Parts: sequence; structure tokens; C-alpha cells
Amino acid sequence: MHNHFMARAIELAVTNARLARGGPFGAVIVKNGAIIAEAANSVTSNNDPTAHAEMLAIRNACQKLEQFELRGCELYASSEPCPMCLGAIYWARLERTYFGSTAAEASKAGFDDSLIYEEISQLQSERKIPMIQIMGEEAGEAFRVWEHQPNKVPY
Amino acid sequence: MHNHFMARAIELAVTNARLARGGPFGAVIVKNGAIIAEAANSVTSNNDPTAHAEMLAIRNACQKLEQFELRGCELYASSEPCPMCLGAIYWARLERTYFGSTAAEASKAGFDDSLIYEEISQLQSERKIPMIQIMGEEAGEAFRVWEHQPNKVPY
Repeated sequence: MHNHFMARAIELAVTNARLARGGPFGAVIVKNGAIIAEAANSVTSNNDPTAHAEMLAIRNACQKLEQFELRGCELYASSEPCPMCLGAIYWARLERTYFGSTAAEASKAGFDDSLIYEEISQLQSERKIPMIQIMGEEAGEAFRVWEHQPNKVPY
Repeated sequence: MHNHFMARAIELAVTNARLARGGPFGAVIVKNGAIIAEAANSVTSNNDPTAHAEMLAIRNACQKLEQFELRGCELYASSEPCPMCLGAIYWARLERTYFGSTAAEASKAGFDDSLIYEEISQLQSERKIPMIQIMGEEAGEAFRVWEHQPNKVPY
């Protein structure tokens, strides 16, 4: 069954590349042995740098299930998720991820996956895109309000 | 000016927490000294685990500019971007990021930011959400098609 689902993710990726609709990436989400959502990369066709296949599949699955977590679900991605998608996998609390190609292969094909993995492990001050803290004291107010909000929905 | 933009990001975060619309996070995107997009976290209200303030602000800015990159733009986030958002910042090719609270403070408030940073630096085999490679050979087909696609839009 694993290969069946991965074959579908790869098919989505190949078709996307053939039609030049976006990057050569596809993903499906599986729950209880059935595909509940699938997507292909649409970064360039939708002007959305976050529209990676994994992100769209996660968002579609959540819309379908009407919940903001995907416990008990598995992701099949035609290529190893980039740090953005890996973060989304954790926030969605997926059970497991299967991937086809590696981040190194994606980088060889011209995508920045490996670079971003390297950047995350750098100190903020040494990253290519600088990250600078300002107004740390004032920003804490948001967490103080959150802490005392009786109607909050934690995630 | 930096404080002006950060104050707006914090205001979005505080208001979001007050109204219990989502996590206590806000973000704005600035280009040429003016805010072109802003957003607050809507993970729980929209059933979308990817709907962090930074992600939504990036997506809104790209829709407005009708482009899939944000070169020359800066992000102001009320809290340090999580790995998902950091990935999106690189894909969007933002110029610089300013943040208020730290990932450690977000974690203290109950959010998984620090955990996800730790997980990314772990070996795949030691991560809490397993990542397993299958069908690596077959998956390479997507990159081979991409390589020979004359109409592709690289990103």
C-alpha cells in the first residue's frame, strides 16, 4: 500500500512538471488506508511561495476533516519536505511522512531545500536573511493576554 | 520606523488574543516604507495549521504584488518565526526579518516553536515524527521531466 500512495504522489509531481504548472512535486495525505487529500506544487502559477505540494495537501485535508490537526494521518511526498513543510508536518501533528527523492536531489534540480536546512542551523546573526529582535518587552503583551484569555483554543 | 511597523504587528497579535480568533501572533510586510500586507494567526478559526501570521502576510503580499517572491520587502513578526515560517521567508526571498518575542517565549506560552527547531536538527531516524524514504528511484522521474521542460518557471 505504501508504494501505491507514493506512486500517486510521484504521478502528481510528474504531471505537474509535464504541464509546467509548478515545481515537480506532489503529495497525498492518507487516513485509514485511503487518500483524503492530494496536491501538486503551484508556487509559480498561483503566485504563492508557500504553495508547496505538502502544504496544500495538509490544508486540503484539514478543510475536508474540518479540524486543524491531522493525527492518525500519513503524508506521502514525492520529495523530502523542505523546512517549511517539515514545520507544517509538526504543526499538523501528522503520524508519519514517506518521501521519494531527497532534499539533496531537489537542490541539484535547482531548488533551495538544502540551503534552507543549512540556514536554520546557523546562528541568526550569520544567516543570509538577517533576523533582528526589536521591542521584545512590548511584544510580550500578546502572550500575557493569551495566558488570561478564557476562550482561547490552544494548538 | 522599525518600531512603528513592529508596534502594528504586536497590535495585531494582542487583538487576535483578545478576540480569541487564533494564536497571539501578528505580522506585517513592508515595502518602500509602507505596509503592503498584514495578518494575524488563524490556525484554529480557519482549521489551517499553516495559517501563521507570517505565512498569511507573505501570501497576501504576493497576491497584491502578483509575484511569487518578495525581494526588497521586510517582515515584522510579533514573535520569532517558527521553522515553517522561516522556510517561507527564504522561499519568498524577503530582505530581512524583525521579530519581537523569542521562540523560547512562544514555547513558554504553550507553542511548539522550540520543539520543532530541535527536531529539524535531529537525524531523520531520531525524529518524533518518522520520515522514511521509499521509491527514491521512481521519484527521480519528476526531476528528469522538469530538467527537460522548456516552459518551466524556476523559483
